[in-house]
Amino acid sequence: MPNSEAIGMVDQIQLDASLEQPLYRQLADHIRQLIENKQLRQGDRLPATRELSQSLGLNRNTIQTAYGLLESSGLVHSEIGRGSFVSGQAAPAAEISFATSRPRSDLFPMDDFNSSVEEVLRGEEARELLQLGSPGGYAPLRRYLLEQARREGTAQDSDDILITSGCQQALDLLQRTFAPAGSTVIAEDPVYPGLRNVFERAGVRLIGLSQSNLSGHLAAAIANEKPALVLLTPSFQNPTGSTLNEAERRALARILKQSNTLLAEIDLYSGLRYRGEALPTLRALEPGLHSLLLRSFSKVAFPGLRVGYLLGPSREVRQLIETRHWVDLHSDQFSQAVLLRFAESGRLAQHQKRMVEAGRLALDAALEACERELPASVHFTRPEGGMNLWLTLPAGMNAEALLPRARQLGINYLPGRFFALQAAADHALRLSFAGLEPAHIREGIARLSKVIREELDRRARNASPDLDLAIV
Amino acid sequence: MPNSEAIGMVDQIQLDASLEQPLYRQLADHIRQLIENKQLRQGDRLPATRELSQSLGLNRNTIQTAYGLLESSGLVHSEIGRGSFVSGQAAPAAEISFATSRPRSDLFPMDDFNSSVEEVLRGEEARELLQLGSPGGYAPLRRYLLEQARREGTAQDSDDILITSGCQQALDLLQRTFAPAGSTVIAEDPVYPGLRNVFERAGVRLIGLSQSNLSGHLAAAIANEKPALVLLTPSFQNPTGSTLNEAERRALARILKQSNTLLAEIDLYSGLRYRGEALPTLRALEPGLHSLLLRSFSKVAFPGLRVGYLLGPSREVRQLIETRHWVDLHSDQFSQAVLLRFAESGRLAQHQKRMVEAGRLALDAALEACERELPASVHFTRPEGGMNLWLTLPAGMNAEALLPRARQLGINYLPGRFFALQAAADHALRLSFAGLEPAHIREGIARLSKVIREELDRRARNASPDLDLAIV
Repeated sequence: MPNSEAIGMVDQIQLDASLEQPLYRQLADHIRQLIENKQLRQGDRLPATRELSQSLGLNRNTIQTAYGLLESSGLVHSEIGRGSFVSGQAAPAAEISFATSRPRSDLFPMDDFNSSVEEVLRGEEARELLQLGSPGGYAPLRRYLLEQARREGTAQDSDDILITSGCQQALDLLQRTFAPAGSTVIAEDPVYPGLRNVFERAGVRLIGLSQSNLSGHLAAAIANEKPALVLLTPSFQNPTGSTLNEAERRALARILKQSNTLLAEIDLYSGLRYRGEALPTLRALEPGLHSLLLRSFSKVAFPGLRVGYLLGPSREVRQLIETRHWVDLHSDQFSQAVLLRFAESGRLAQHQKRMVEAGRLALDAALEACERELPASVHFTRPEGGMNLWLTLPAGMNAEALLPRARQLGINYLPGRFFALQAAADHALRLSFAGLEPAHIREGIARLSKVIREELDRRARNASPDLDLAIV
Repeated sequence: MPNSEAIGMVDQIQLDASLEQPLYRQLADHIRQLIENKQLRQGDRLPATRELSQSLGLNRNTIQTAYGLLESSGLVHSEIGRGSFVSGQAAPAAEISFATSRPRSDLFPMDDFNSSVEEVLRGEEARELLQLGSPGGYAPLRRYLLEQARREGTAQDSDDILITSGCQQALDLLQRTFAPAGSTVIAEDPVYPGLRNVFERAGVRLIGLSQSNLSGHLAAAIANEKPALVLLTPSFQNPTGSTLNEAERRALARILKQSNTLLAEIDLYSGLRYRGEALPTLRALEPGLHSLLLRSFSKVAFPGLRVGYLLGPSREVRQLIETRHWVDLHSDQFSQAVLLRFAESGRLAQHQKRMVEAGRLALDAALEACERELPASVHFTRPEGGMNLWLTLPAGMNAEALLPRARQLGINYLPGRFFALQAAADHALRLSFAGLEPAHIREGIARLSKVIREELDRRARNASPDLDLAIV
């Protein structure tokens, strides 16, 4: 095939759906698919990295990493001075993806959703929903959420709410409003990549604290770093799935209050608790805390509608609304009204109950499979809810290096590197289990175990000759 | 009333719906309403500016400007060293607002909208719309819009589309991707305040060119300023309503192409042409132009759904999608699918036809009333479409200073200052006519004329003594 055709095909990549999927992975997947569909065949030359980097407008490193990935999965080989060539076909397999922290779409209650939409359409306000609205959000939804938060003790009378386009926008607005370039922000390490990206791209210094002893380190970190903002996810953190106990929450709230540091408390998963007792937010534990609470309908209901919210003192919320005005005016009002109807009608509570039942089965399947399948040298967190757990491979094993083999066996996950701030997490990986059925979770973890055991075997084999040599 | 109560009430302001409404105006309106509702009464002391500035988290200047506005409308008076006090009641009047560039909600075709929603709900993809989607937008909508743009000659095969949350987000993404802090951007002067705010807040140097001879000045401006981006609105520009003729478009496209400068062509209003012949976009006139086209469903259909798009070379669109990923992941997919259905079904074209008919009546009412009512010393643009026209008052008359009196008479508009870059526009104002019925437009312009004539009279009276003095 002439190279111009190959670049034409490779060029047509569309950036894809999944949240944390890095660009190099998307490019590699695209090329993998071209090979699997026989649009690229054995012996075809891939576009030169320089050429492709220019035509895609991506960094050349990104292209090289993608090619490296394809090479390590055996799909592509490089010939020095000549370029990269297609080697052959990869084994086709129905992929079980642990890569995205999202709900199962087959659990979406479509009848209830449809009823909510129809009720909104029949409502008196339908017409005004289509007109230009308020930067703070659809007023009846704001009132409803604020009232609910007051009843549960998370909001005070003087608090206010800003409806955001999901939690991702809330993070972006926080950065733009309270953490300018050059400022410092403290977060958990490892942390959600969307958080890391927002602050790093804006030139903010991001300091990571290990979740294992947050309260032991937070006071000193605040004193040393004078952060503009501290971001914490006390319940079922992404990626670790860990939850802070009540004593730890109290200790953290006290430290934050004493230093009068602004806290952004990310609370997306606490509605998805499958075992154990519910815990209060830091915000509810310490009423004088200077804090903002980030919540969303994306985990417990429908991520595609992009509705989240930010609750806090009206002064800070007003500043965030001012920023938001110039970012995109406001969120889609129709979806805000539909979610309000879905919640008000009690349908959200019913759906949440079903989500918790399904989540418990998924979590049990994941933990049982991890116990049963994985080598004893692999450690994993045991969350009581949420969507993610965190696997730590034996020392020296690299989760990203295992990924090509994992994908050959039809599984996918995000390696630890994407979540790491200061502490290296190359030997860790995130398993997002909540989007999968229990049978697939079991099968996927069995395959993952196979990948890890193969690697342990390989290392054992390689270790012996070294040992022999050392003895001689 | 004790001052703590007054601050409690003033404090409860909610930032409001209208797009370009500045904060001080919102605060003044809120206090005006408190006075009109008799929640604040004659003799009540307003909160001290320092105190209110702290509790609202706003600049003290903002508070002072709001108080000044209330003072000039006679609702409030200040006593040196004591503070500001409520004077009395303003004349109540049903306000005719020319302040927002938006469609009439009573023209929204609710039956057609409902049918589109129901068809989406019945479709096979409904469930997947609620799942996490793609940063670039809902793929079928992207394909539809791209195909449409290709048919009209505005897009080439290698182009791509990013769905944005309205044109405001497109501007924000352009700034973040192509015009970093410290860079220079060229735009029209006067210009849409949302554009000015995005770039100025980000620390971009914004150079304004008068629309009257753009092609005469653009080449030199590009050579001198080396802009990262040029933003132009060739059809029915906001705020002036002006349209560039085809020769001017060709000249501008040539200059931009020769200098290989990136153009963002804002094309929100061209679908709302009430008279005259449609004109091609710069992008269609000059295929080799390095340009991005910004369009939206907000003017021609439903602003509340926040769906716009950005069309351009796939390389630049890909960079914008990368930025967008970390801003808010993607736009609401349900509304994207509904708008696609609304367009595909032919309902959008029908609605657009009705919008054009109604717009023509509104424009005729506005131009006829301006001709008939306004003093000859007032000039105004004569747009052939869109939503806005631009009034220039007699030299030395300040549009903002007239606003308190205008509001007493029950009309509202945005003074020129909000649209000005380098050239002062204090003596100008924007009349957004498309959101109003013809009868209200006529009545509103009659009232505006009264305000201007009163001011001319006042100036004539004041001028005479000066003249007398000069003679003596």
